[in-house]
Amino acid sequence: MIVVMQKGATRDQVDHMAQRVEELGLKSHVIIGAERTVIAAIGEKRDYMRDALESGPGVERVVPILAPFKVASREVKPEPTQVVAGSLRVGAGTIGVIAGPCSVENEAQIIETAHRVKAAGATALRGGAFKPRTSPYSFQGLKEKGLEMLSRAREETGLAIVTEVMAPEDVPLVAQHTDVLQVGARNMQNYRLLEVVGQSKCAVLLKRGPAATIEELLLAAEYILDGGNKNVMLCERGIRTFEAHTRFTLPLATVPYLHNLTHLPIVVDPSHGTGHTYLVPDMAAAAVAAGTDGLIIEVHPDPEHAMSDGYQSLDYRQFEETMEKCRKIANVLGKTM
Amino acid sequence: MIVVMQKGATRDQVDHMAQRVEELGLKSHVIIGAERTVIAAIGEKRDYMRDALESGPGVERVVPILAPFKVASREVKPEPTQVVAGSLRVGAGTIGVIAGPCSVENEAQIIETAHRVKAAGATALRGGAFKPRTSPYSFQGLKEKGLEMLSRAREETGLAIVTEVMAPEDVPLVAQHTDVLQVGARNMQNYRLLEVVGQSKCAVLLKRGPAATIEELLLAAEYILDGGNKNVMLCERGIRTFEAHTRFTLPLATVPYLHNLTHLPIVVDPSHGTGHTYLVPDMAAAAVAAGTDGLIIEVHPDPEHAMSDGYQSLDYRQFEETMEKCRKIANVLGKTM
Amino acid sequence: MIVVMQKGATRDQVDHMAQRVEELGLKSHVIIGAERTVIAAIGEKRDYMRDALESGPGVERVVPILAPFKVASREVKPEPTQVVAGSLRVGAGTIGVIAGPCSVENEAQIIETAHRVKAAGATALRGGAFKPRTSPYSFQGLKEKGLEMLSRAREETGLAIVTEVMAPEDVPLVAQHTDVLQVGARNMQNYRLLEVVGQSKCAVLLKRGPAATIEELLLAAEYILDGGNKNVMLCERGIRTFEAHTRFTLPLATVPYLHNLTHLPIVVDPSHGTGHTYLVPDMAAAAVAAGTDGLIIEVHPDPEHAMSDGYQSLDYRQFEETMEKCRKIANVLGKTM
Amino acid sequence: MIVVMQKGATRDQVDHMAQRVEELGLKSHVIIGAERTVIAAIGEKRDYMRDALESGPGVERVVPILAPFKVASREVKPEPTQVVAGSLRVGAGTIGVIAGPCSVENEAQIIETAHRVKAAGATALRGGAFKPRTSPYSFQGLKEKGLEMLSRAREETGLAIVTEVMAPEDVPLVAQHTDVLQVGARNMQNYRLLEVVGQSKCAVLLKRGPAATIEELLLAAEYILDGGNKNVMLCERGIRTFEAHTRFTLPLATVPYLHNLTHLPIVVDPSHGTGHTYLVPDMAAAAVAAGTDGLIIEVHPDPEHAMSDGYQSLDYRQFEETMEKCRKIANVLGKTM
Repeated sequence: MIVVMQKGATRDQVDHMAQRVEELGLKSHVIIGAERTVIAAIGEKRDYMRDALESGPGVERVVPILAPFKVASREVKPEPTQVVAGSLRVGAGTIGVIAGPCSVENEAQIIETAHRVKAAGATALRGGAFKPRTSPYSFQGLKEKGLEMLSRAREETGLAIVTEVMAPEDVPLVAQHTDVLQVGARNMQNYRLLEVVGQSKCAVLLKRGPAATIEELLLAAEYILDGGNKNVMLCERGIRTFEAHTRFTLPLATVPYLHNLTHLPIVVDPSHGTGHTYLVPDMAAAAVAAGTDGLIIEVHPDPEHAMSDGYQSLDYRQFEETMEKCRKIANVLGKTM
Repeated sequence: MIVVMQKGATRDQVDHMAQRVEELGLKSHVIIGAERTVIAAIGEKRDYMRDALESGPGVERVVPILAPFKVASREVKPEPTQVVAGSLRVGAGTIGVIAGPCSVENEAQIIETAHRVKAAGATALRGGAFKPRTSPYSFQGLKEKGLEMLSRAREETGLAIVTEVMAPEDVPLVAQHTDVLQVGARNMQNYRLLEVVGQSKCAVLLKRGPAATIEELLLAAEYILDGGNKNVMLCERGIRTFEAHTRFTLPLATVPYLHNLTHLPIVVDPSHGTGHTYLVPDMAAAAVAAGTDGLIIEVHPDPEHAMSDGYQSLDYRQFEETMEKCRKIANVLGKTM
Repeated sequence: MIVVMQKGATRDQVDHMAQRVEELGLKSHVIIGAERTVIAAIGEKRDYMRDALESGPGVERVVPILAPFKVASREVKPEPTQVVAGSLRVGAGTIGVIAGPCSVENEAQIIETAHRVKAAGATALRGGAFKPRTSPYSFQGLKEKGLEMLSRAREETGLAIVTEVMAPEDVPLVAQHTDVLQVGARNMQNYRLLEVVGQSKCAVLLKRGPAATIEELLLAAEYILDGGNKNVMLCERGIRTFEAHTRFTLPLATVPYLHNLTHLPIVVDPSHGTGHTYLVPDMAAAAVAAGTDGLIIEVHPDPEHAMSDGYQSLDYRQFEETMEKCRKIANVLGKTM
Repeated sequence: MIVVMQKGATRDQVDHMAQRVEELGLKSHVIIGAERTVIAAIGEKRDYMRDALESGPGVERVVPILAPFKVASREVKPEPTQVVAGSLRVGAGTIGVIAGPCSVENEAQIIETAHRVKAAGATALRGGAFKPRTSPYSFQGLKEKGLEMLSRAREETGLAIVTEVMAPEDVPLVAQHTDVLQVGARNMQNYRLLEVVGQSKCAVLLKRGPAATIEELLLAAEYILDGGNKNVMLCERGIRTFEAHTRFTLPLATVPYLHNLTHLPIVVDPSHGTGHTYLVPDMAAAAVAAGTDGLIIEVHPDPEHAMSDGYQSLDYRQFEETMEKCRKIANVLGKTM
């Protein structure tokens, strides 16, 4: 950390802050510049210290030098992690494809979709049974019945299942029916849920909240990793910006940026990331070109009659074409898909 | 709702969509314009319909006309709601002031702070016992012990207590010790928590998520209201924007905007809304001038040694001055504070 | 500046960067931490250096310590600047009020409005003659004829004039008719315009661009100050965020933040800052409470028939009420308005 | 347009607004819904009407149905435009690549770079002679001398030149030395400049401002098209969001979104769009996969010693690798590059 003192900070204030740094178990190093004095605080960073120092007398600001996440960091584990969950492999040169409807609506729908997306090349099936909905008056999912339908789809097709878990107390139930626990964007900082998921044996797909910084995303992952569960995939699904022509803004630079910072694999969601069916194929292709380790795509047999998210779902034919395009790009980049 | 067809939409597509509108229980009304055909869908709006129509053939977009929230709406209940919880009154001309430390640290700290903020004019005491923290390595709060200390501060001072609840299963315990359950910004869309809080008898302070639209905030409130709990206060605590010189951007236009839309009272949090002690007094005053029904302000006996949020906490003297300034403004505006 | 090296940066890279720092005329100071090496670069900052160092081998990032603006800085001139232009005084305890229509539409309109806003307490008249419009098909202003009408309004009422100048070649003409040259938000980084305005004798109202950081705003002011014109007022008129219920988000924390950083006075524009007439009065009052040195407000005799911005203009009665409210707040805060 | 009346709007208000719609030359059509009355205003839209209606009595809001841009619209000209400027072809299946340094620094630098980027596959040379810089103390470009060096690079290599023009009065001079006039992001709404550029015979590269909506970008293009210059390329170079780990957020969904809306070709700038050299290659590849018609990339012989933007410039080898990767993707997508 670097403690930057205000212009005109007194000698006493500098001494006080240098002593505070030492009290916190760090070594202080005072540098008197032409217009400012700064105090370098040397040692392993502990998170609470920045806050403590920032309210000291004569302090202008505190600049952190070390990233606050540890287990997720590429500095700790340089080689990329490949997450394996049933038929799904994500990372280290293999692109996993998770496809299926927003909501599980009935058994015929989910099983037919599973067969079709598998035939097109998907390696896992997505489908929501517990649905977090913005409005209390919207369809909230089939819940346990939906989970059972997902289990049946897995038996029939062998596809790994990815489904969302909304609350700590549901983790054991959901874990019985799924290969991957999805933590939704709205729950990215639901720490109680992260802690319980961190004790599960299931792999986890952790979605970035629409206003979360990359640091906050990695610290949320850190809650799971710290609980002992190392099978974590990060998911970029779009952020909230002033742009209104897409539901969210999909910042694909997240992919190479995260690859530089963490060993965890990255999955891109072009469905939520754009919010419009006609934008999904090109953005799926772009994600592959940007180096993503996985895709999660909403596919519905009949989007016009979907119970949720029809406006951003692909139909079977559109999904097949998207897969073909993505596979071509993956091939020329030397990736397996 | 207005269904806007694409330029060049065929007669068949228009007929199909008009029929879809009717199937959904609405009356359709086709208007053929110079360059576009639009279909007005008349009737009470139900939330899932917009999605359904938006994926229809030849549809460019669907424009909602009615707001999706109901119970929170000023159209349903025109007169403003005053929330009363122990010593705290918020709304309908009375400004409530909730003050206290970010975290409960020990009994002496919280009881002394309670006495001091009460003397300065606060009508409720805040203090965190369960702390949601960005990093798993940060101080997570004293939990049940912290709640007990809050209870003791209430006994000693008579101040109502406001404290955060992080998970559905904690609601009964927290409710024993508090007058107001705070739902934090990170949990604004933790729907399971909203449902459980909606069944509580405690008043609720619902904080806006930093990327939440006003519609999403009101729909989150709707989850609580729909559960039967009508004592809901909305809290503006800043949004995430490109501005980095404040921790969040505090958009005070939220206050008159919400007053126009909902009967629920509005509380402003200038501490989180700025993230810097020296900006809090002016923004508290500005919130009062903008018409806020309440303030929630972090106050700590010794910010430099606070276990969390010291950089945005006022000390006693700063709080007293802020109260004095706010009271003067409330007085000239004819408000009680 | 602090040059932060990557983890694993080699000794050679550190030596190379230390030497680069010296080549740039700064003193280097290498600090070897537990996990990172940083190089403090001591001396007066020159702006281009940060870029140069950031692309060096083994460098993770460069942290600037000194602000890049100088003449605008409170460190250089601690006492607040009061800008005086005809009847308008802004800053150092005096709140100036600039009011009038978005566009000058005809002589009767502008002269009547001038009389009415003066009677209500405005100290300057605004009115656009050269109008920057998003669409080429919108009304572009009366141009020179509009300027002449403003001159006549000034003769009749004695009010100082504030009007926008859009291009360097128009500065001499506009300066003949106005007391304050307004540089619009879209032109905040039109450096050629800033340079020419910097050579004018007129005072300047520099509006913040909707995506400009405070640092960029102050550096734009620096272009004008550096040209020799010291009569610069900064104007906060709202930033672009994800919020769509207001046209822009008005971040009033800008006011105390800028007061801490610069001696230049701050004017708030609640009309553009909200985009809705009914939000303007409360936000004008909030701006005064936040400590603004001035207000600029759109007032039109008949907003429904305004040629531009009717939706955010006050009529005379609304303006009078707004002034009364603001004056009360200014009074209790000890300000002159 | 749809005029949405407030709940409780009176019969008189509805009649008044219907009459206003007719006065504006549109046909009105009143629809009385269950909870709201709306008035459809039928006819060709004229831009100023929305504003006028929005301030009418009893009006809640006005919903535009038609896009405000015309000449740029795909509805007017369905087939894609290919812009040809010397050696550069952009659009209609051909991907143009513009490469070169941020600033022209000296003749040797620009000519060597021209040869190298041409050898790697670039079809035009970029290089700044007039440099808009955030700080007045930064290097402002070699101006006319820089333009002459670009002319010489064109003679030597045959590459088309792309360079920025900052002010209306510079257009004739810059046009003598360049094939494409670049309008920078800061000048996207410098309407005087757009008008003059619209009268030039040079092709134009119009960069999106970092807070501009797509509609604003297309209306800026409309200023140029309306002036008679049809050779306009739109450039996505990143928007300003809360993300701080990249200098701007590059929203690649702009590419398919614009292709759906306009016939004008789209160029992506991954250098400014990320702000970090190491992110450029993957984002260039992603842009090609997303369907871009062109790339503009900063390349410098020695980024560490560049006079500007070194931190986001590629060196020759990095550029060659980027081109190779992009070409492979273009090939499998059936594009010429």
